[in-house]
Amino acid sequence: MLDTAAGTKIQNVLSALNKALINRNIDEALELFAEDCYWRDLVAFTWNIKTVEGKAQIRDMLESRLDDVQPADWTVDDNEEPSHADGITEGFIEFDTGVARGYGYIRLKNGLIWTLLTTMHELKGYEEPKGLSRPLGAKHGEHQGEPTWAEEREAELAELGVTTQPYVLIIGGGQGGIALAARLRQHGVPALIVEKNERPGDSWRKRYKSLCLHDPVWYDHLPYIKFPDNWPVFSPKDKVGDWLEMYAKVMELNFWGSTAAKRASYDEATQTWTVVVDKDGEEITLKPKQLVLATGMSAKPNVPAIPGQDRFQGIQQHSSEHPGPDGMEGKKVVVIGSNNSSHDICAALAEHGVDVTMVQRSSTHISRSESLMKHSLGPLYSEEALANGITTEKADLLFASIPYGIMADFQKPIFDTIREEDAEFYRQLEEAGFMLDFGPDDSGLFMKYLRRASGYYIDVGASQLIIDGKIKLASGSDVKELTEHSVLLEDGRELPADVVIYATGYGSMNGWAADLISQDVADKVGKVWGLGSDTPKDPGPWEGEQRNMWKPTQQDGLWFHGGNLAQSRHYSHYLALQLKARMEGIPTPVYGLQETHHLS
Amino acid sequence: MLDTAAGTKIQNVLSALNKALINRNIDEALELFAEDCYWRDLVAFTWNIKTVEGKAQIRDMLESRLDDVQPADWTVDDNEEPSHADGITEGFIEFDTGVARGYGYIRLKNGLIWTLLTTMHELKGYEEPKGLSRPLGAKHGEHQGEPTWAEEREAELAELGVTTQPYVLIIGGGQGGIALAARLRQHGVPALIVEKNERPGDSWRKRYKSLCLHDPVWYDHLPYIKFPDNWPVFSPKDKVGDWLEMYAKVMELNFWGSTAAKRASYDEATQTWTVVVDKDGEEITLKPKQLVLATGMSAKPNVPAIPGQDRFQGIQQHSSEHPGPDGMEGKKVVVIGSNNSSHDICAALAEHGVDVTMVQRSSTHISRSESLMKHSLGPLYSEEALANGITTEKADLLFASIPYGIMADFQKPIFDTIREEDAEFYRQLEEAGFMLDFGPDDSGLFMKYLRRASGYYIDVGASQLIIDGKIKLASGSDVKELTEHSVLLEDGRELPADVVIYATGYGSMNGWAADLISQDVADKVGKVWGLGSDTPKDPGPWEGEQRNMWKPTQQDGLWFHGGNLAQSRHYSHYLALQLKARMEGIPTPVYGLQETHHLS
Repeated sequence: MLDTAAGTKIQNVLSALNKALINRNIDEALELFAEDCYWRDLVAFTWNIKTVEGKAQIRDMLESRLDDVQPADWTVDDNEEPSHADGITEGFIEFDTGVARGYGYIRLKNGLIWTLLTTMHELKGYEEPKGLSRPLGAKHGEHQGEPTWAEEREAELAELGVTTQPYVLIIGGGQGGIALAARLRQHGVPALIVEKNERPGDSWRKRYKSLCLHDPVWYDHLPYIKFPDNWPVFSPKDKVGDWLEMYAKVMELNFWGSTAAKRASYDEATQTWTVVVDKDGEEITLKPKQLVLATGMSAKPNVPAIPGQDRFQGIQQHSSEHPGPDGMEGKKVVVIGSNNSSHDICAALAEHGVDVTMVQRSSTHISRSESLMKHSLGPLYSEEALANGITTEKADLLFASIPYGIMADFQKPIFDTIREEDAEFYRQLEEAGFMLDFGPDDSGLFMKYLRRASGYYIDVGASQLIIDGKIKLASGSDVKELTEHSVLLEDGRELPADVVIYATGYGSMNGWAADLISQDVADKVGKVWGLGSDTPKDPGPWEGEQRNMWKPTQQDGLWFHGGNLAQSRHYSHYLALQLKARMEGIPTPVYGLQETHHLS
Repeated sequence: MLDTAAGTKIQNVLSALNKALINRNIDEALELFAEDCYWRDLVAFTWNIKTVEGKAQIRDMLESRLDDVQPADWTVDDNEEPSHADGITEGFIEFDTGVARGYGYIRLKNGLIWTLLTTMHELKGYEEPKGLSRPLGAKHGEHQGEPTWAEEREAELAELGVTTQPYVLIIGGGQGGIALAARLRQHGVPALIVEKNERPGDSWRKRYKSLCLHDPVWYDHLPYIKFPDNWPVFSPKDKVGDWLEMYAKVMELNFWGSTAAKRASYDEATQTWTVVVDKDGEEITLKPKQLVLATGMSAKPNVPAIPGQDRFQGIQQHSSEHPGPDGMEGKKVVVIGSNNSSHDICAALAEHGVDVTMVQRSSTHISRSESLMKHSLGPLYSEEALANGITTEKADLLFASIPYGIMADFQKPIFDTIREEDAEFYRQLEEAGFMLDFGPDDSGLFMKYLRRASGYYIDVGASQLIIDGKIKLASGSDVKELTEHSVLLEDGRELPADVVIYATGYGSMNGWAADLISQDVADKVGKVWGLGSDTPKDPGPWEGEQRNMWKPTQQDGLWFHGGNLAQSRHYSHYLALQLKARMEGIPTPVYGLQETHHLS
């Protein structure tokens, strides 16, 4: 419900907060917070991605950061309508710091701050050139004799890595690396992407042929250029590939295809990386100041060691190597695992008449794509949301404004509704023997993604094939061993197999750091992804944020970037600002640098 | 000034119009119009692009079309604010016809209709799939076994022109052909572009190297995908080229590069074209139903016959062949002509220290780019306009709502202001010997563009070089002849020359029809472009619209498309609807098919 009084209510709190902070009166500031309170900061206060929870943690953060940050001018954003419903008053806010303009979101409960999101919007004096301040393009008058745009671009590409060095080297040219490079280009930060595949988009093109995005288009935009209104809801993989390729071109990204990063080391004295890459057969040494691993959180294949793998006479492949059903006709295929990739692969095989069995080793969460769109993403990312004035950028901030510590509380009712609406679907699935869950606390799909990036399938049809028996199901038992021509389960069942596909997921991204830099650095940095929720595959202690993503790590100059298209879009903004500030020599003291609790 | 009463005033007139038209009472309808009145129709009423002027012409159009069109439901668009100022009440309107949804703009003077724009927005039952009705993309459930997007696209490209025929063949793959093909694709109309250059965008890339758009970015968007906020104001030619190339790819256009159209003929009995093309050395015969010449209104070089051209010992080139200043050092260059291309070419040469003389044979209009942006385009196409809620699409309609018959009256005050603000600039230019004009009726640059597509330069720096003498000027005399090493003017001056560049403009687009089809068809169709304003290079009689552009011609199945980026964007919408209706067999009786008054 819109409420004209809501704006005043929020402004009163902000004015009091403004006064307390300017007076460095932390006690007075804390009086404005509820006992149960969360302050999520994206770079503006902490030069980190950090949530402080409860008054004690907020006090500690303010004591450490207030003198340096110099926050001021806290106001309600006049262009947005604050609202009040169910005892919560909420709205978008603006503020200022010594070096930046900030933007955020606030929720009041009984007039006290329950959640506060503060984000860095732009660095003062280093605003992106866009809109009114976009470049002129044409070279007029005194500049007319200078090189043309095409000549300058050609020279830049010829010199990069030869006579000039990128400030940022990005390993991996998927949506993560590309979105970040686009932002860095706009910030004037010299950056280079190296990608083992030939062309931008190949990391999508090379996956199994039936692959489409499981997230709808409204959630998937890249920065700067949105998908057009006629773009499909669920983009086929090759179409995503083409879009990324054109995007890299028109955004003028420096992209070296067919280039593998071989090894990297960091010189603490000069704070410079030495990275050796193989560019289409030629070894080149690069000297960036910052190294970003955007190699994909789902790109380091995890294949379990199973007795008999050496004895098995058929084909074994990880899901990432599986090209699709062509040539599989007449074969018996066993797919180990029961998450997204397994379902997609099994469905395509079954539709091509291949005898395929899915081995479900543990319970899996299933949400129907349509139900997810309607109840989960729809309120923020959809045509309806756009019609309600919720742009992609606003949706990103609204989503970011919910602290991870209470996000499960926001998610549970959504999945309770889905569970009820789709009760008959779930009944049939369980009747077919499928082991179903809604997460350890019934919080559903998105929390599983954030905690472990696995354990679910967004149903776009495979579940019906399981219900109908067109995909055979072997559930409830782990794999014991492989024989020459079969997969043997712990419970004694034997599944004849010509092909075994390991849809067994991916390892932590710090495995890339081990391969490229050293095991020491990988161990120092620790596990990437997950919240420390103390739920399966996400061991505690509680971190409050995604481990190691988009923020400083225990290794100077080493960053991890990526996630789905939405995360790549939104968090590339904050990572780009962190890198820009470092390049410009703006002090960036990190508050609350994460500790390492798990090696992988 | 916004006026809440304005909406009511307009609605009252629309309701009366609605009633009169539904009752087929043309007398009653005409009473709602002022004596001095204009009805511009884009396809909705006339299946033509047609302006009827005055009550007699409106009566004739309504008598001819009313029973067929069945207009109804005339209302003010609730989403837009009508306004009232200086005695004019105006606003956006909606209406319906038997087959389409319409959109338009109305201006009332003393409560009577002064100008009325009616446009076809979409055909009922054939709406473009976008927003909520966009394609699903992924193939779920029962469609899962079908070919993937990539496989379907590959098959389409392999079959087109071999086992399948395009409904529309577009000759020319510049912005005109590309914008039209994008719209046709969304309408499900099979279309193919053939382009003599290798890649989309090459028609820009191959021009002289200093070329940048002379129109600012806000005016230049293509349909569906807008340039991002960081795109330069005046895009360098190669950047435009890259954008067109990526656009053709992601919009899935069928584009044959390195393909020249050799000859075409129309079979009236089967209403089918036979078009022979040379595709990279292979001769292929295509059988489209509709043939669109999008070969560029500035693409058929016009080189005047001058005595001595065979005797001249140096290099002669048309401006379209001129690559830029590289290699011209130490040479004496004479550029004949004084419009946009001449100025750009002379400026680049002068900046590279080349001895260059511009031969100005007749007076030329000059507007400074900044002044044009501020006073002419700015109110409709700029960051300020966007901030005022004037989207590109609204701006296009607002601009289209001004009938050509009174457009000069709208333009004159703009150029009076520019003339006053830039008086000192113009004084210096005339002092340098430059022959200046503001058009025959002082209506300035845009009317020159619409009437003759020549006779002006948008100043981005060359004028200062003329003022400073860095570009030499020989004005006031035509060229008499060329000698071995010079250009001889009528007044006896002799200009030493190693290179002669003919910046002498382009011929009428029906010249392409003569080359491709026959001189008979070219003559039947007649001159392309121009309004019949009875001003220099635009002979009468008055046509009321651009000759032959974006609308039916005297030759069945032959269309001309193009113009600048803005026209290619906006009018491709109406041409696509005309072609779609014909493909679907919707009757399209053309009212007021233009007559041919000039052969070229």
